[in-house]
Amino acid sequence: MRDYTREIDFYCRRLFPITRSITGDGNRESLKILQEIVPIDILEYPSGLQIYDWTIPDEWNIRDAWVKNSRGTTLIDFQKNNLHLVSYSTPLHKTVIYEELLGHLHYLEEMPEAIPYRTSYYEKNWGFCLSYRDFLKYFEKGESYEVFIDSDLGPGSLTIGELLIPGLSPKEYLISTYICHPSMANDNVSGMVLTAFLARELLSRSPLNYSYRVLFVPETIGSIAYCAMNTEAMRTVRAGLVISTVGGPGGFGYKQSFDPGHYINHLIEQAFFERGIGFVTYPFDIHGSDERQYSSQGFRINAATITKDKYYEYPYYHTSLDDLDFLRPENINEALTVYRRLCNKLERNLTYKNLRPDCEVMLSRHGLYPKTGGGILPAKNSPSEVDAMLWLLFYCDGKMSLFEISQQTGISLETLYETAIRLEEKSILQRI
Amino acid sequence: MRDYTREIDFYCRRLFPITRSITGDGNRESLKILQEIVPIDILEYPSGLQIYDWTIPDEWNIRDAWVKNSRGTTLIDFQKNNLHLVSYSTPLHKTVIYEELLGHLHYLEEMPEAIPYRTSYYEKNWGFCLSYRDFLKYFEKGESYEVFIDSDLGPGSLTIGELLIPGLSPKEYLISTYICHPSMANDNVSGMVLTAFLARELLSRSPLNYSYRVLFVPETIGSIAYCAMNTEAMRTVRAGLVISTVGGPGGFGYKQSFDPGHYINHLIEQAFFERGIGFVTYPFDIHGSDERQYSSQGFRINAATITKDKYYEYPYYHTSLDDLDFLRPENINEALTVYRRLCNKLERNLTYKNLRPDCEVMLSRHGLYPKTGGGILPAKNSPSEVDAMLWLLFYCDGKMSLFEISQQTGISLETLYETAIRLEEKSILQRI
Amino acid sequence: MRDYTREIDFYCRRLFPITRSITGDGNRESLKILQEIVPIDILEYPSGLQIYDWTIPDEWNIRDAWVKNSRGTTLIDFQKNNLHLVSYSTPLHKTVIYEELLGHLHYLEEMPEAIPYRTSYYEKNWGFCLSYRDFLKYFEKGESYEVFIDSDLGPGSLTIGELLIPGLSPKEYLISTYICHPSMANDNVSGMVLTAFLARELLSRSPLNYSYRVLFVPETIGSIAYCAMNTEAMRTVRAGLVISTVGGPGGFGYKQSFDPGHYINHLIEQAFFERGIGFVTYPFDIHGSDERQYSSQGFRINAATITKDKYYEYPYYHTSLDDLDFLRPENINEALTVYRRLCNKLERNLTYKNLRPDCEVMLSRHGLYPKTGGGILPAKNSPSEVDAMLWLLFYCDGKMSLFEISQQTGISLETLYETAIRLEEKSILQRI
Repeated sequence: MRDYTREIDFYCRRLFPITRSITGDGNRESLKILQEIVPIDILEYPSGLQIYDWTIPDEWNIRDAWVKNSRGTTLIDFQKNNLHLVSYSTPLHKTVIYEELLGHLHYLEEMPEAIPYRTSYYEKNWGFCLSYRDFLKYFEKGESYEVFIDSDLGPGSLTIGELLIPGLSPKEYLISTYICHPSMANDNVSGMVLTAFLARELLSRSPLNYSYRVLFVPETIGSIAYCAMNTEAMRTVRAGLVISTVGGPGGFGYKQSFDPGHYINHLIEQAFFERGIGFVTYPFDIHGSDERQYSSQGFRINAATITKDKYYEYPYYHTSLDDLDFLRPENINEALTVYRRLCNKLERNLTYKNLRPDCEVMLSRHGLYPKTGGGILPAKNSPSEVDAMLWLLFYCDGKMSLFEISQQTGISLETLYETAIRLEEKSILQRI
Repeated sequence: MRDYTREIDFYCRRLFPITRSITGDGNRESLKILQEIVPIDILEYPSGLQIYDWTIPDEWNIRDAWVKNSRGTTLIDFQKNNLHLVSYSTPLHKTVIYEELLGHLHYLEEMPEAIPYRTSYYEKNWGFCLSYRDFLKYFEKGESYEVFIDSDLGPGSLTIGELLIPGLSPKEYLISTYICHPSMANDNVSGMVLTAFLARELLSRSPLNYSYRVLFVPETIGSIAYCAMNTEAMRTVRAGLVISTVGGPGGFGYKQSFDPGHYINHLIEQAFFERGIGFVTYPFDIHGSDERQYSSQGFRINAATITKDKYYEYPYYHTSLDDLDFLRPENINEALTVYRRLCNKLERNLTYKNLRPDCEVMLSRHGLYPKTGGGILPAKNSPSEVDAMLWLLFYCDGKMSLFEISQQTGISLETLYETAIRLEEKSILQRI
Repeated sequence: MRDYTREIDFYCRRLFPITRSITGDGNRESLKILQEIVPIDILEYPSGLQIYDWTIPDEWNIRDAWVKNSRGTTLIDFQKNNLHLVSYSTPLHKTVIYEELLGHLHYLEEMPEAIPYRTSYYEKNWGFCLSYRDFLKYFEKGESYEVFIDSDLGPGSLTIGELLIPGLSPKEYLISTYICHPSMANDNVSGMVLTAFLARELLSRSPLNYSYRVLFVPETIGSIAYCAMNTEAMRTVRAGLVISTVGGPGGFGYKQSFDPGHYINHLIEQAFFERGIGFVTYPFDIHGSDERQYSSQGFRINAATITKDKYYEYPYYHTSLDDLDFLRPENINEALTVYRRLCNKLERNLTYKNLRPDCEVMLSRHGLYPKTGGGILPAKNSPSEVDAMLWLLFYCDGKMSLFEISQQTGISLETLYETAIRLEEKSILQRI
């Protein structure tokens, strides 16, 4: 298998510094870079558009922001780290006293070196984030400060990247990642890059058995907007993957889709087992990423997430310490390997119908069986190809999937798939 | 919580001495006393009425009964204990020899102090019950005895007490107790009194979410008659409680309804757990009390019974030793607390439908969410109110009840109920 | 229970020597002998008939076959053992050199005394089977051999034995055995004889509750032909038994039908338990005998097999050592006892509907209950007849079978059956 680590690293370094939010030019710039990997279509949904219970907000763009003390010394500088500014801060230029400023400063006492990540998308507000160390060093009672935020907040649009990869069947799998986080590496430069590379691999295969809908959306508002504007298509998606935080130094894990018995969860576990990778299982939770939308009653898409250092769980989560030192491109390459293996399994999980359901098929007539009888015993240890054929003929009723037959018989999905293809070529099984 | 022990004691002492049977004035007198607690309606079904496979029998009333020896000494005296007479004994006045009398005497060799309780409702007969000690003392071969039974057995009616407590929903819970046992305290003076007190509490609450149908019936024939005369209403009852033997000195227990997975059984166990009360679980059995009728194929009402010293199980069951020394009014008060807690839970087990099923609701728009994002992690230990909201929005599909959501999420029914009420006020959830 | 061992032995000795195959006079001769036991109907399906994916082959009859060396000494002689010839060998008379002959000789190096059993039904070919010992002794490089096969292979028919035993219900159980194996005793002289004796017993009972379809078919092609020619009847069979290898010295076992929860599997286990017989459980497998056809999608008959020394499992399987020394007629008699007990259980697994579903039936009115109340407690240890009645009235809804009620209540199928018959006589339960 090719190792894409260097290429992954190249894209991570280019994407990391860009200021992204739920809208704005940073998102467009990021998608443009990803278009170098795969031909993503760009969708723009205008501010003010009603999407279910939500409204697309004004577009936010930011040029500069700082806080200076009364001696003109810059204490907080957006140019040094875009996390310093609360995302969606309104334009401002004024002098404020310590007490007023304090309500607009965010820091983490328990992690004094880290700048936290904060947003205020739907409540008009402004604020700065800084390390607790800097807060103690630079700010004190009785002082006054000059605050400058050079942002635009007005009608514009929300930007989404979409890539539709057609397969032999119109039935779709959803692959979705989020593009709204500014300079944090594992969350979610890693997810954006992995998604693009995975999409490139799928595109390169022809023909695919299933179709794939690949989305690059601002979290929550973006996936809601997309669902609202593509309701019919989204209501029939078979299952989904939400790609996030796949490049940390910690362990692998996966968050289950809402139905723990769904095949996507089983297939993820198989992919881990086959790669010999230990993993943590996170049960479905209504917190998380865009699976919250895709799993809602209107859509009920079983969407799972494979992670390496899962969001919420690693200490640097949503801070400036989630940077390019924390991220390891070789981890993304390894996570890509697991996702690739999973997609192979999704591709093989077909459903067939036995066209000759009455009694056994005469395998020898179709060139599928040894010709001298009387001495052939069933295979004692591993199932033979004849075993796989006979079980497929027994179970393929147009409803039971190859995954389910695999669970029932203990024969691997891969063996069943290859055998089913042979029987399909003989017009004995028909793909549903 | 108020302690009703003294009030309960007062009613137990008044109800205990009355001679009750499946028909007769004793039942009317008992219901009249209970009417002091709650406004019970009295229904009279006439003798001869066909009710399914049964017929309402003649009404039986008894004034006096005794057995004297040839010297005129009274050996058995109904006035001293109404258990001495087999219920429904036909009128009689004659002298009989020992051998004939013997076939009409009932005693318990294994419990020589106790008078057993016997009936002969549907086979015309007569008989006396006495302690084995008295039997040995007073009766001997060769003697003859004067037997006197001053009873009426003729056309009349069967008496039932009914109380309908309306709630916001027309969907009903059934609460049923039996009133046909003469002077036995735990079985079933305790059940009659508890039922009246529980009904009084339900009546005092307004509005109730559900409706309640409270019945005071002669066991078997009374519940059958009521089902036959109220078939349509009884066919749609959600679940039921049959109240019996709740005041003995022994342990708490409950008899499960026929479906052990039904929520009424789970909720009873929760009520016990929350009160810190150990209990015995009795699986459903076709023997028992009026749940036999309510659970029959025509009605299939899941009806459970909470007991303290369950019928069949305590040694004094169906004997004169089940008296006011055996019964403890404070036990009835404690059992009432468990039943009250159970009813609270039944009241909270509503079913809701999410009116905005597509994607998440924007909680902040409805004043239901903190406004600055990026720093809110899911609650690690106990679920927050936001968690409860999100799970409700995820699961409330108009079919899944709050109890089922509680089982699925581990969030208490009480928390889900309070949260659902908030979402109902915002017109996000709709009660089904 | 009568011991049929001597009679069984008599028929085994007559059937063993006959040369059977999937067609031919040997099959007709065998069925004629079995007709002495039960009045089997003979069906003939002509060569060339299309049956699903298969075609009925030409009929094969064999008179003689041998291999001689150049000195005229007979090295292999069909007259001594009909396993010496590969079944369906084409006619031949020629001299061949060692190298050519070698490709047509079959032996077992690992069992040097045994002649293996081989067939070539659908690939025109010829061959001889012999012990490895004889192979080493008689054949050597450089020699040439005279080969003679005096067989007919031409249009004719495939012979099937059928016996329809009508019962009160038109619902059928299938009992099927195969008649295509030449001189091997456990496989399947034992199955043919047991099937005939079991059918004789069923015939002698009148009336049976269910109907039985008893088949004597050549394996695979025979059961397929029968299914194809009797599709409608076969699609509605309730469950089936495939009878094979029931007379070996090894242990009892049974192969489950495809649904391990099906009652036929439970009832077989009960039959073993009640006889105190240990047994091996073989899960369903797509290899096996004619259950492969009966279980196929078009029919989905749950068909199980009780064995004593199961095919595939015993070392002498499909060799000349499976002879009359290996077979023990007393084993067949014992297996017959288990099958008889199973059929008794199938007969008792009726389904009833309670004609009085509303509330309890008044048992005393129907003469089904003791008449004095108040002193009757539920039976503590084993269920009383009243218990059985009450549970039947509770569960019999026209769908739940007596087997299912037995599983639910722990009351034996036998007790439930007898009690149901009493309630049927009183017109309280109705047979479905």
